[in-house]
Amino acid sequence: MGLKSFVEVSADSHFPLENLPYGVFRSKAAGGSNPSPGVAIGDFVLNLTVIASAGLFDGPLLKNSQCFNQPSLNVFLEMGRPAWKEARATIQRILSDNEPILRDNISLRNKSLLPMNEVEMLLPVVIGDYTDFFCSMYHTKNCGTIFRGPENPIMPNWFHLPVAYHGRASSVVISGTNITRPRGQGHPTGSSLPYFGPTKKLDFELEMAAIVGPGNQLGKNINVNEAYDHIFGLVLMNDWSARDIQAWEYVPLGPFLGKSFGTTISPWIVTLEALEPFACDPPKQDPHPLPYLAEKKHINYDIPLEVWIKPAGQEQATVITRSNFKHLYWTITQQLAHHTINGCNLRSGDLLGTGTISGPDRDSLGCLLELTWNGQNQLSLNGSARSFLEDGDEIIITGRCEGKDYKIGFGKCTGKILPAIPEDQ
Amino acid sequence: MGLKSFVEVSADSHFPLENLPYGVFRSKAAGGSNPSPGVAIGDFVLNLTVIASAGLFDGPLLKNSQCFNQPSLNVFLEMGRPAWKEARATIQRILSDNEPILRDNISLRNKSLLPMNEVEMLLPVVIGDYTDFFCSMYHTKNCGTIFRGPENPIMPNWFHLPVAYHGRASSVVISGTNITRPRGQGHPTGSSLPYFGPTKKLDFELEMAAIVGPGNQLGKNINVNEAYDHIFGLVLMNDWSARDIQAWEYVPLGPFLGKSFGTTISPWIVTLEALEPFACDPPKQDPHPLPYLAEKKHINYDIPLEVWIKPAGQEQATVITRSNFKHLYWTITQQLAHHTINGCNLRSGDLLGTGTISGPDRDSLGCLLELTWNGQNQLSLNGSARSFLEDGDEIIITGRCEGKDYKIGFGKCTGKILPAIPEDQ
Repeated sequence: MGLKSFVEVSADSHFPLENLPYGVFRSKAAGGSNPSPGVAIGDFVLNLTVIASAGLFDGPLLKNSQCFNQPSLNVFLEMGRPAWKEARATIQRILSDNEPILRDNISLRNKSLLPMNEVEMLLPVVIGDYTDFFCSMYHTKNCGTIFRGPENPIMPNWFHLPVAYHGRASSVVISGTNITRPRGQGHPTGSSLPYFGPTKKLDFELEMAAIVGPGNQLGKNINVNEAYDHIFGLVLMNDWSARDIQAWEYVPLGPFLGKSFGTTISPWIVTLEALEPFACDPPKQDPHPLPYLAEKKHINYDIPLEVWIKPAGQEQATVITRSNFKHLYWTITQQLAHHTINGCNLRSGDLLGTGTISGPDRDSLGCLLELTWNGQNQLSLNGSARSFLEDGDEIIITGRCEGKDYKIGFGKCTGKILPAIPEDQ
Repeated sequence: MGLKSFVEVSADSHFPLENLPYGVFRSKAAGGSNPSPGVAIGDFVLNLTVIASAGLFDGPLLKNSQCFNQPSLNVFLEMGRPAWKEARATIQRILSDNEPILRDNISLRNKSLLPMNEVEMLLPVVIGDYTDFFCSMYHTKNCGTIFRGPENPIMPNWFHLPVAYHGRASSVVISGTNITRPRGQGHPTGSSLPYFGPTKKLDFELEMAAIVGPGNQLGKNINVNEAYDHIFGLVLMNDWSARDIQAWEYVPLGPFLGKSFGTTISPWIVTLEALEPFACDPPKQDPHPLPYLAEKKHINYDIPLEVWIKPAGQEQATVITRSNFKHLYWTITQQLAHHTINGCNLRSGDLLGTGTISGPDRDSLGCLLELTWNGQNQLSLNGSARSFLEDGDEIIITGRCEGKDYKIGFGKCTGKILPAIPEDQ
């Protein structure tokens, strides 16, 4: 049996006492409130500012810290794993059903435990830089085949290093934010001018992302065997993509406007501590990685992921993909070590996307580009069909590890498509 | 004759009363001081925090503003052109030789005017995102020829849109910061493993960058004819590059670790107002740009640029390139309009690099990749020779518009190469 909290946690909840993911919220009540760090428990949010003010963080690292008296988690993340472990132990204890300190203090319970439907979730961190990797071999192979043909779909560098590019930090938004269909240039046909207008190939990308804890100094790298201590946890991510814009613009400098109109992350950061029971072997790496990428503890996590689509006007969402985090060829610690090998400095709160997480099967592909093979095969949904996303479509990503007596869930990462802005603006 | 200040300004100064570029500095004196916004005049820095506290910003927009009581210029930049014009008019007036308010107030002069050699310059803005364009046709053609051969050196998209990629914001550093030679993977030869070690092809890139003023909301674009009002000014930039790392990693997602180990900017932001007298025609655009990139006021600026190299142990620097900002095919306003056409949000302080500014001639090429044709033709310097940069080399970029009676200068953008960190770290 799992751990038991005095807060009611249903059997299928994403947020039992074993999880305790971190986010930043504010009250929806009239006048609202300042953003505060919080932890999810069942259908409630525990306000960490209130808990800290009440003196319940009594361990040596957090006792006198202002880390929970902040509008973001960056200060707490910068403190590193010893502080994270201390916080987790304290929160797990004060929420457990045999500890009276919060359970029996009605006034403090009312102040610190807020129903989730009464709060608005915000971006949990200030994201200095957002990097997106390209670490699913299946996704890489499918994209290469679609864009360049079946001869050499995977570039020779791919098996030697975790390929990545810098994404746009300003347009990372929190789950629930609407996404406006972007306009841009698409490939010209023949000798005509390029197409200009709303994208005709709007896509989602099923990803997860690591949130960086302590950073590194410019000019110094982080050893792959120490990389684990620089990662706080994971979120779900949807890296919205406009395939026609991307295909025309990306040579030779990579994706730009085809991606930078929006990237959605889920609000709750699930810590690596909570994911430990779900560690598993990654795919075999062949060739063997260069020494700076060869790690002693080489693990992935078994995190089943789903993508659902809910067209405008439909009551029900339809599942269109079932994939898993464990398909990633390069681990998040290898990604982080590679990112810093040139001396590039990471900062706490940086976002490291995994790239689209496609699995080996037809129903485990992580984007419509792959699912419809660039629009060639329509996807049938509950009475309608899709090549790419239409206005009003909502995409819902979920992820949940299945423990014996409990689940470790990520909640949802959602976004709905709004029509493009008119031509003359 | 130029304008005259009571502060002595030598005839060849970069910083006469017509310039008034903005930066952020702190005192080098024992204990230092908090970072403050300042303006350069001759060999002095005018402390804007002190001037604001003394009540000398008496115009309607700045009178009650805290914009100069900040550790960065972001708040001032967000206020937009009306505030910038008001600040410029006030500063030009209080520094002029016929205005007694500062000239005759010895105590305020001593507090507000600091010799440049007694201050340390800092990054002038908090850079949310850094984007690098690719807007010199000469550079594009040369790189394409070197990397892919002479058949189709310029990709078909290049004449239709200002190609760009997202760079790394965390590793943008201020002029004078040393750059550690990055390590990384280079192309394998034959069937061997890729090379790993310190880059053998370390390069500079002569660039300039626009600093964004007011940003835009996610999902809305900035019209090309309004883009001017979203650009505060320009700095010099050196986008350090490791060509062997770049060449191996950049397919298909663009440059990453070959660039992210350091990007240097000059400390003084020269405003577009100061550059107005140097407006000139850009190169003719053929084909005619799509309507969203066709601008009514289509201008470049005539800014002569130089790159100097000073090897370790040499007394004298040697000039290796003379180029000009006016060679850019796409204007900075077109760059900004394109950047937002998909709804991508810019924020005040964002950095938009132009890409390497090469001219048409052999001695106007903006990087060693071009100057030595990827190391094939060594560059001879005052007794030594270079294919790429060596440890101890210092690169000095300068830029200065030549007015009839005055110069509008950018000062210097410098950086020195330190040896790579040892193998076992």
